[in-house]
Amino acid sequence: MERPVKPLNPSELQPSDKALVPFVSVDNMMRLIHHIGVEPMLRDLAAYIEADFKRWDLFDKTPRVASHSDVGVIELMPTSDGEAYGFKYVNGHPKNTREGLQTVTAFGLLADVYTGYPVLLTEMTLLTAMRTAATSAMAAKYLAPTGSRTMAMIGNGAQAEFQSLAMKALVGIDTVRLYDIDSRATEKAARNLAGSGLTVVACTSAEKAIEGAQILTTCTADKANATILTDNMVGAGVHINAIGGDCPGKTELHRDIVARAGMFVEYPPQTRIEGELQQMPEDHPFTELWQVISGAAPGRRDAQQVTLFDSVGFAIEDFSALRYIRDHIRGTAYYMDLDLLADPDDPRDLFGMLMRAKG
Amino acid sequence: MERPVKPLNPSELQPSDKALVPFVSVDNMMRLIHHIGVEPMLRDLAAYIEADFKRWDLFDKTPRVASHSDVGVIELMPTSDGEAYGFKYVNGHPKNTREGLQTVTAFGLLADVYTGYPVLLTEMTLLTAMRTAATSAMAAKYLAPTGSRTMAMIGNGAQAEFQSLAMKALVGIDTVRLYDIDSRATEKAARNLAGSGLTVVACTSAEKAIEGAQILTTCTADKANATILTDNMVGAGVHINAIGGDCPGKTELHRDIVARAGMFVEYPPQTRIEGELQQMPEDHPFTELWQVISGAAPGRRDAQQVTLFDSVGFAIEDFSALRYIRDHIRGTAYYMDLDLLADPDDPRDLFGMLMRAKG
Repeated sequence: MERPVKPLNPSELQPSDKALVPFVSVDNMMRLIHHIGVEPMLRDLAAYIEADFKRWDLFDKTPRVASHSDVGVIELMPTSDGEAYGFKYVNGHPKNTREGLQTVTAFGLLADVYTGYPVLLTEMTLLTAMRTAATSAMAAKYLAPTGSRTMAMIGNGAQAEFQSLAMKALVGIDTVRLYDIDSRATEKAARNLAGSGLTVVACTSAEKAIEGAQILTTCTADKANATILTDNMVGAGVHINAIGGDCPGKTELHRDIVARAGMFVEYPPQTRIEGELQQMPEDHPFTELWQVISGAAPGRRDAQQVTLFDSVGFAIEDFSALRYIRDHIRGTAYYMDLDLLADPDDPRDLFGMLMRAKG
Repeated sequence: MERPVKPLNPSELQPSDKALVPFVSVDNMMRLIHHIGVEPMLRDLAAYIEADFKRWDLFDKTPRVASHSDVGVIELMPTSDGEAYGFKYVNGHPKNTREGLQTVTAFGLLADVYTGYPVLLTEMTLLTAMRTAATSAMAAKYLAPTGSRTMAMIGNGAQAEFQSLAMKALVGIDTVRLYDIDSRATEKAARNLAGSGLTVVACTSAEKAIEGAQILTTCTADKANATILTDNMVGAGVHINAIGGDCPGKTELHRDIVARAGMFVEYPPQTRIEGELQQMPEDHPFTELWQVISGAAPGRRDAQQVTLFDSVGFAIEDFSALRYIRDHIRGTAYYMDLDLLADPDDPRDLFGMLMRAKG
């Protein structure tokens, strides 16, 4: 898509500034999160994402570019608002956990559309967990039943605590009911959430976890058509936040739930091949979440409706998170400058720069 | 595309190793190039690219993912051989030179397909100039007339010296005839190539530059349908190495040259929208360069044929360059480790890692 761009202030175009790219390491990201606070940052991120969802039409959008193997996927997720360009590198390898590695690792980059020069490189494993939780809570704010206080959190892996705290910070839940097929994961999440202000209930089955919950979050990692929730488990009026179904052949909900729920999606061309939507026929109705947020479409229809946020994660959410980090590291010690870009005094003299470096 | 993968040796799967990603800065890339030597490295890179062109079918290929604006383009160029995954970020902003910035800057990443974890991050502005030159020379080795000794180099910007030295190292040219619409660019290139072993002739027109040349290289930056070479300038038997036409609406050769030349391309779906090929009808014949290199298709037909390498740059060339850097920094001081990947002891305990960092 050909887009008009606005040049930055000329004072920002000095080569000496442009050659160095601010880099936020994992260590610095953790410091930044603690400096801001986990819940305030989740709220801030949701506000950035919400602002970008409100100007959805303005973005250059494309489904992520995926390279699949028999053990996982590596994806690039680019987007641009015409002034900044962002992309995230992210993998998804469910078998990694068994080998002591993260299922999902990520890093991201923001660049200036006018010059094409990168302006930020950052870890995004932590940032993705934060933005995914912020997006879930933003959706729940619009879709969950009024007065939701209890969330069932099914799948207690790396995302679970972030999801729980975002629902506390943005939706106001006070109780989280945890369940995982591996009880050690539940123990881990319960331990981490102790002292968070949430009442934490460790459950021994998915059925027990959903008792009394208005919000059901599923975040499981198996690359399979699983049925974490079956139809008879889902009562009237709940909001389902389905996070784990995020690639072809990977879903979490029984088809009957998907069929009767009010379905809300991020970017349809991507959700169709990655989300719960892949279980449904082409003409299955859905609403785009950005339309709800911008007021163009209704959210929850009534207190009886089951709403489903069929979350797969979209590039604009990462773009919002990258913007947030760029805006919040200025003037701080939470980054270092990387010598990533060749910057000869005469831009045509790349070879001369190389030769002069020989001395 | 779903691909089978081969796991790495288990000893390579320790989280402590995986969390840190080797990073090659511009400074370290320059040191590495000088350590190896410019011409030896160009030869080595061509050998890596040639090896990958010979196993072309094995790669997961896609045209680059481009985000266009009215002043330039930002692109992601991913590919995978099923064991490693690589991508390059690269911009193309012809107007940048006037603002003291590079037209093209780039960085790249190599990852392990089995784990999805990055294993190398590197500057690629210099490396792209090196791999582009190595690819040009590899193509000329197969396509240029036997005994080529003189190259005309039209467009004396950042790529010119690299192109010249690669043709010297791989094809055996001894003379380069330089021309640029800006004589200062020609002076710069002539100065940089003094002492290289090449006879350097600065010319005041494209017509003069091509006198007696067997290889004509065009590498100009204007984003327009230019005619750097007109039909009457191109005599029988020459090889044209057209580098500058590399995005939609950006070409360098008069249509009549393209029509009568034997056309050789990298990846047809990309060349069709970016290369000189965009000037021709859908059914215009061409040969894929990898077929020539693997022996599946003939190269130059006879001494009279005008051959044209319609180079736009393809992801596999970057992949080869990334492989080369990965193989050659081991055990050297030409990289630093970046804390790019979150690595909790328990992979499910990302939040616990964050909390423990608070102290």
